[in-house]
Amino acid sequence: MEQVKAYGAESATSPIVPLTIPRRDLLANDVKIEILYCGICHSDVHFARSEWDAMAPVYPCVPGHEIIGRVSAVGSDVTKFKGGEIVGVGCLVHSDGTCEACNDGEEQFCPNANLTYGTPDVHGTAPGTLGGYSESIVVNEKFVLTIPENLELAAAAPLLCAGITTYSPIKRHGVGPGKKVGIVGLGGLGHMGVKFAVALGAEVWVFTTSPGKKADALRLGATGVILSKDADEMAKHAGTFDFILDCVAAKHDINAYINMLKRDGNITLVGAPPEPLDVSAFGLIMGRRSFSGSPIGGIAETQEMLDLCGEKGITADVEVIGVDGINDAYDRIVEGDIKYRFTIDMSTLQQ
Amino acid sequence: MEQVKAYGAESATSPIVPLTIPRRDLLANDVKIEILYCGICHSDVHFARSEWDAMAPVYPCVPGHEIIGRVSAVGSDVTKFKGGEIVGVGCLVHSDGTCEACNDGEEQFCPNANLTYGTPDVHGTAPGTLGGYSESIVVNEKFVLTIPENLELAAAAPLLCAGITTYSPIKRHGVGPGKKVGIVGLGGLGHMGVKFAVALGAEVWVFTTSPGKKADALRLGATGVILSKDADEMAKHAGTFDFILDCVAAKHDINAYINMLKRDGNITLVGAPPEPLDVSAFGLIMGRRSFSGSPIGGIAETQEMLDLCGEKGITADVEVIGVDGINDAYDRIVEGDIKYRFTIDMSTLQQ
Repeated sequence: MEQVKAYGAESATSPIVPLTIPRRDLLANDVKIEILYCGICHSDVHFARSEWDAMAPVYPCVPGHEIIGRVSAVGSDVTKFKGGEIVGVGCLVHSDGTCEACNDGEEQFCPNANLTYGTPDVHGTAPGTLGGYSESIVVNEKFVLTIPENLELAAAAPLLCAGITTYSPIKRHGVGPGKKVGIVGLGGLGHMGVKFAVALGAEVWVFTTSPGKKADALRLGATGVILSKDADEMAKHAGTFDFILDCVAAKHDINAYINMLKRDGNITLVGAPPEPLDVSAFGLIMGRRSFSGSPIGGIAETQEMLDLCGEKGITADVEVIGVDGINDAYDRIVEGDIKYRFTIDMSTLQQ
Repeated sequence: MEQVKAYGAESATSPIVPLTIPRRDLLANDVKIEILYCGICHSDVHFARSEWDAMAPVYPCVPGHEIIGRVSAVGSDVTKFKGGEIVGVGCLVHSDGTCEACNDGEEQFCPNANLTYGTPDVHGTAPGTLGGYSESIVVNEKFVLTIPENLELAAAAPLLCAGITTYSPIKRHGVGPGKKVGIVGLGGLGHMGVKFAVALGAEVWVFTTSPGKKADALRLGATGVILSKDADEMAKHAGTFDFILDCVAAKHDINAYINMLKRDGNITLVGAPPEPLDVSAFGLIMGRRSFSGSPIGGIAETQEMLDLCGEKGITADVEVIGVDGINDAYDRIVEGDIKYRFTIDMSTLQQ
């Protein structure tokens, strides 16, 4: 068992600090990955600071589930990968492979899944899984993804969580040519939602409270911006959207967006407000509309998303930082001061 | 223009009293119907008492949109019906025939639809449309439905609203063999939901707060009853339902039912609580579940539902009353003291 350098939190109130953590010796189906970049997800902040009741960290904890790296070794039975290849790891590192969800290729719903950080570890190396803020990781090949060669690696890292979280519902709800699509909130998730919906050929509008985001929305390919506080603008678009992706993680008026939907339209929530949202029965019934939620996708769908990104040249807009910048980045994420994701250059771990 | 006997309200606080109302002379595509039975819907009570902001009655008003009658005359161009046939009229009596909804056979979403009572009347006979608590009605043949001959007519009346309101979402969500279906609330809508889901071959469970409803649920064909206040019973069924039809028209804990759904399960609301429902993002996101609403169906779907009822022998459980019993029936509907719908025998109007 190897000891490797990492960054993580020693308690709910500690900053992110250097740590040394164990990584298991290669099993027959394992891939060892030298981590080049790791994206920072808002979930990392909630987790490290123990802000979720349902997922209390065992400290020291290591966040990070947007991992890009190079294969440095493979187990004896590995067939999918070989040394030197550029690969990714997202939110999942294990599932039981036998349940209905696994059989359907929807490992994210496996009741025995291990997440990349913060859950029990079926391989038992440490008290729980330890994430990607580290120099290397060992992962079963089933959960390792191929990264298209043409993508800029630092900017590809957020595809592994923000990318699949937005792509999955956009794909499932048939976003494409002839569809009018709304994206609520232009942040880490929202900017990926715009890119995917545009790439798939839809007419895309961004709902925002900030007039200042208009230029950026247009640059990302949106047709326009709708200021959600402007009742006249909202009224003009009422009942016209086929699909809305709601990326807002704070309490907000969901009925205003439900009323933007056409008959049989759907709004899917990917942000997770901690408080319940007030939903009016009338808006759902009268337009036969639906309100859904969606988490990440399965492994096959994540690879499909990455392949599309390769084909269309899609990556996230990132600010690249060193390991010494993680704590500042966390504060800026909480303040919403980032366009649109941070990626840690893990080579700075060696300095 | 003929004057006919009817029953209706003269103000928001008046009882339902005898009235005389106009019915238009037959237009070329009109069917004149001698009304035999008219069901009482909870909507009738809300409307007559002016309890809905969005639909303030012009008084005197005449409720009634679950109409069964006999064709007594037809206009010169009518091809679908002839004198003596048994027919039905539901919630719709007109739509523009040119909009997207009409082209899709979804007249219930036509922005220019006329409801059977309480909306402007395109034919302009009275200040607004006047419903089925009357001896006759004149309706364009497009909005007249064929009633299967084998059905008991008094018990068929509620199919025109309660029937189609429950059948439409049950059908759209693929209820059938191999599906586990929940019905929340065993009332006028709920008991029809049980009958349809059972007839379509699903395994049906009734969620209720009243242990006393178990025998009735089983009689209607349900596999069992789940007491929604019993946390252990609820936990036993968590995550196991494909589809839930929520027929509760008062504020209730929708998250408890969302958590009963499988991955990708749907809960559809057909009752319309006046207050918003608190929806937790977590329950929707983690199971990729959806929460929808659904109103009545279109004319073609209503006929499809009636034909199924003929084939399977499905009607509502009704208590038949005379016109002098309408006011008591309204009070009992508000108290929930009815198993499960009232139907007015309109022959009592002539006594």
